[in-house]
Amino acid sequence: MDVEEVVSGVLEGDRRATARAISMVEDGADDLPELIEGLFSKTGNAYSVGLTGSPGVGKSSLAAELVKAVRSRDRSVAVLAIDPTSPFTGGALLGDRLRMQTHATDPEVFIRSMATRGHLGGLALAAPEAVRVLDASGADIILIETVGVGQAEVEVATAADTTLVVVAPGWGDAVQASKAGILEIADVFVVNKADRDGAAEAARDLEIMLKMGPEMEWVPPVIRTSTVNDEGIDELWEAIESHRKHLEASGELDRRRRARLLREVEEMVSVRLRDRAASMLERGAMEKLAVDLVARRVDPYRAADILVGEVGREDR
Amino acid sequence: MDVEEVVSGVLEGDRRATARAISMVEDGADDLPELIEGLFSKTGNAYSVGLTGSPGVGKSSLAAELVKAVRSRDRSVAVLAIDPTSPFTGGALLGDRLRMQTHATDPEVFIRSMATRGHLGGLALAAPEAVRVLDASGADIILIETVGVGQAEVEVATAADTTLVVVAPGWGDAVQASKAGILEIADVFVVNKADRDGAAEAARDLEIMLKMGPEMEWVPPVIRTSTVNDEGIDELWEAIESHRKHLEASGELDRRRRARLLREVEEMVSVRLRDRAASMLERGAMEKLAVDLVARRVDPYRAADILVGEVGREDR
Repeated sequence: MDVEEVVSGVLEGDRRATARAISMVEDGADDLPELIEGLFSKTGNAYSVGLTGSPGVGKSSLAAELVKAVRSRDRSVAVLAIDPTSPFTGGALLGDRLRMQTHATDPEVFIRSMATRGHLGGLALAAPEAVRVLDASGADIILIETVGVGQAEVEVATAADTTLVVVAPGWGDAVQASKAGILEIADVFVVNKADRDGAAEAARDLEIMLKMGPEMEWVPPVIRTSTVNDEGIDELWEAIESHRKHLEASGELDRRRRARLLREVEEMVSVRLRDRAASMLERGAMEKLAVDLVARRVDPYRAADILVGEVGREDR
Repeated sequence: MDVEEVVSGVLEGDRRATARAISMVEDGADDLPELIEGLFSKTGNAYSVGLTGSPGVGKSSLAAELVKAVRSRDRSVAVLAIDPTSPFTGGALLGDRLRMQTHATDPEVFIRSMATRGHLGGLALAAPEAVRVLDASGADIILIETVGVGQAEVEVATAADTTLVVVAPGWGDAVQASKAGILEIADVFVVNKADRDGAAEAARDLEIMLKMGPEMEWVPPVIRTSTVNDEGIDELWEAIESHRKHLEASGELDRRRRARLLREVEEMVSVRLRDRAASMLERGAMEKLAVDLVARRVDPYRAADILVGEVGREDR
């Protein structure tokens, strides 16, 4: 398949082409710019929902239930599971993926996990591109599942239109949540595993923290769910829909998407110029500067000044 | 105090000047370049040790014990506690800091917590600068304590010469560790709270994971410590010293420091040019490009191409 075939395949909603396109994003393929160029004008129709939270809170099971909820409303859905893989542990989450197999034969459900092996920009750039592919392929709803609440995962979660922060009973007190920085990014809180002890307390803790925080135009609702008892999933879906309506009515959806798009391009510029600076410094025109830096004859700020000038001049 | 006074104060080891200099780093003060310019040529003597691990594993208590170990060997020590503060929770770690007060009157111990309120480059750039200040102030050993194992904290930990990854019994299985990506960054593993049940198992799990991983020139030792029983602290200090000797003998210390310095300058260049790209795109010369992007007339790669060219041309 060449890029043109992938582009036309994705636009027709062909699953193989879509999978191929995500692989191109994952690997940072050379012809990724052509892929995105071919798809970009056809995007903007999907609504994306990010799920984030510590390992073990049940995000995958919850995503599976949300897939059911979306399908019962007759809309198509794509799930993008983002694995922050390490050289040690490629594929650690494969088990999680298998739980999704109930939907494996539904043509309106597309499930794909993605690492960021080759993409120069890492998750911050690969995630929005994968979402773009799924959007162009005709998915109405895109669920983005990420593992952990590190900075990279937070960035991914905020790449969605609505971000769910998932916790579980006994998941720890308010201080943990605030240390992890998840309060600021949640549009909806989900206390999953609500069949277990401590769910009411976890929900109450969150509600208290939200009251203690600054006033917000949209106050994130706290929804209790259980994928065992099939509890709370419809309420969760309604909360997502309410948030969407809020974003649309306030003009905030357009503002957020615009800001995300500009940030993405700024990040691309930044990654590209960092790469250029690194080449110049490590094996190119500015090698002497590196030597002076290491010998402490030039300080980092001065070195950065010089490089900023040179990186701009370089025309490649 | 003007910058020159701060510089000469830091170089004399004056505590007030050193505290002031760290505040300048924290706030991203306008005269930070002059500060660093004044200090940079006097750095390179300190050895830095990073402590990272999930909240609750006892990093602060361990740092306090390490301070004792360093002092009993008659060397000076600085502790830099890095708080990934959020707008919600400024100062959440103040309680942790107080545990260090036993050393508050020792002139050879300097303790300081730092957030990154104002620094444009965030932790990735603020941490090495703060270490530089402490280095220039004459500290022999610098302990860098960070909270959490998110990407930003991992970056900070790897800014140290030796990185300790601290876990506690019952802290979770091997899979959690590998998901958190901490295996790759550890030079020494510490199983803290070794007086509790499960310490032997946690240590064994780590040792098995290390055996399963790729072959390494330096195999991170797994040290059990208890700050309650005063257990294992000397062994831990010896492990740090062994790692230092390994780095020095193999030439790896110079290589790592060189690579870190170049990466820091590359990051500075990248942050500065990203900022420039953002100004141009959001309120400057490239506003039309932003409009075309949002209207999907120009795709992100093409927009980045254009901006990369323009950002370089801009001379400010």
